[in-house]
Amino acid sequence: MKSRTEYLVMNVPSRRGFVNITGEVERVVRESGVLEGLVLVNAMHITASVFINDDEPGLHHDYEAWLEQLAPHEPIGQYQHNRTGEDNADAHLKRQVMGREVMVAITGGRLDFGPWEQIFYGEFDGRRKKRVLVKVIGDQ
Amino acid sequence: MKSRTEYLVMNVPSRRGFVNITGEVERVVRESGVLEGLVLVNAMHITASVFINDDEPGLHHDYEAWLEQLAPHEPIGQYQHNRTGEDNADAHLKRQVMGREVMVAITGGRLDFGPWEQIFYGEFDGRRKKRVLVKVIGDQ
Amino acid sequence: MKSRTEYLVMNVPSRRGFVNITGEVERVVRESGVLEGLVLVNAMHITASVFINDDEPGLHHDYEAWLEQLAPHEPIGQYQHNRTGEDNADAHLKRQVMGREVMVAITGGRLDFGPWEQIFYGEFDGRRKKRVLVKVIGDQ
Repeated sequence: MKSRTEYLVMNVPSRRGFVNITGEVERVVRESGVLEGLVLVNAMHITASVFINDDEPGLHHDYEAWLEQLAPHEPIGQYQHNRTGEDNADAHLKRQVMGREVMVAITGGRLDFGPWEQIFYGEFDGRRKKRVLVKVIGDQ
Repeated sequence: MKSRTEYLVMNVPSRRGFVNITGEVERVVRESGVLEGLVLVNAMHITASVFINDDEPGLHHDYEAWLEQLAPHEPIGQYQHNRTGEDNADAHLKRQVMGREVMVAITGGRLDFGPWEQIFYGEFDGRRKKRVLVKVIGDQ
Repeated sequence: MKSRTEYLVMNVPSRRGFVNITGEVERVVRESGVLEGLVLVNAMHITASVFINDDEPGLHHDYEAWLEQLAPHEPIGQYQHNRTGEDNADAHLKRQVMGREVMVAITGGRLDFGPWEQIFYGEFDGRRKKRVLVKVIGDQ
C-alpha cells in the first residue's frame, strides 16, 4: 500500500466563498503514483466544508442564499456559541449541511468522476488561513 | 491490496425517488473477494445522493416532504442556477442534505452493518440514466 | 495492509445528546499499529450520527435547537413513519443533516486533525444501547 499526505492552504478574503480545488487534488493523486485506491479530502477547520458539486456561479449563489436562510449569521445573539466571544456559530451549522469531507475513488491513476463532479472548498468564516487535508491510499 | 470498481446504472422514471441498492453493493463486495476493507458507494451525478437509512416507505415519504420544504422545486425562478435553462437547482440543494456518498466497513467478507442499515440511491432529478460508483479496497 | 475493527457501545440516557468519542477512536488507532491509513467511524443505527466539530457546550445547544427547528419532534403525527408505532421520524431526519460517518486520515500513527477537530456521537433517539463502528485500515 502506498500513501501520500498533503495540506492545501486556503485563504478566502471574504467571510464566505467557494473555491474549486479539483486541480490541486488531481495533482496530489498524480504525484502519489497510486493507480487504484481512494483519496480523502477534508476541511481541517470546523467552520469550513469540502463538497462535490457543479462549478456554476448561479448555483453557488443559490447555496449561499439557501444556507443563510437555514442558518442565518444574524442576529449574532441568537446562538449560545457566540457568547464565548465568537460570531461564527452559523458557520458551524452551515458546514454540517455541506459536509466536512469527500472520498473519491482513484481508478487507473485518475479521479473516477462523473461528468460534472468538481471538488470545492466551502468557507463560512474566512479572512484567515485554513488548511485542507488530502490523503491518498492505494496501490501502484 | 485488492480492489474492484463497478458502475451501477440507475434510471428512476419520476423526478424524485429512492432505490434500495444494498443487494447490488453486497454482490460487488462478494465478487471482489475482499475480506477486510472498505467500500465507497457514491452518486456520480450532482443531483443525486447515496445514503444509508431505513427501508420503510413512510419514512421515504417523510424525507420527500421534508426536502421539498427545505429546498422547494418551485417557483423555478427563485434559483439563479435555473437561469441557465435548467429547472433542477433544488435537486443540487436536496442532494447536499442527503449526501453524495457512504463508506461501509467490510469485515469477514461482508458489509459490517447495524440491524437496520440499508443503502439507498436518492434521485432528485430523474427520468434519465445516471451512474453509481462502487469501489472496494482491502485484503483477502 | 493491516486492519482493526472495534464496536463502541453508546447509551445516552436522554432522547438526544452529544458524546465526545475522540479518545476512544485514538485508542483503537493506537492499538491497530497502523501508521499510514484511514479510519472510518460510523453510527450503526439510523437515528444517530457521527460527526466532527467543536467540543463547546454552547455550540451543542445551538445544534440541538437548530435541528429541532429543521425537523421538529412534535407533533408526532406529522410524519408517516410514526404511523408504524414509532415516534422517532424526526431522528431519522436530524441524522441526515449531521451525517452518519466520518473518515479521518492517520499520519505517523495519529489522527491527522486540525486544531479544533473532535469526533462526536450524536444521539437523536436514545435511552437504549447503540453501537459505533471503528474500522482502521493502513500500513505499519
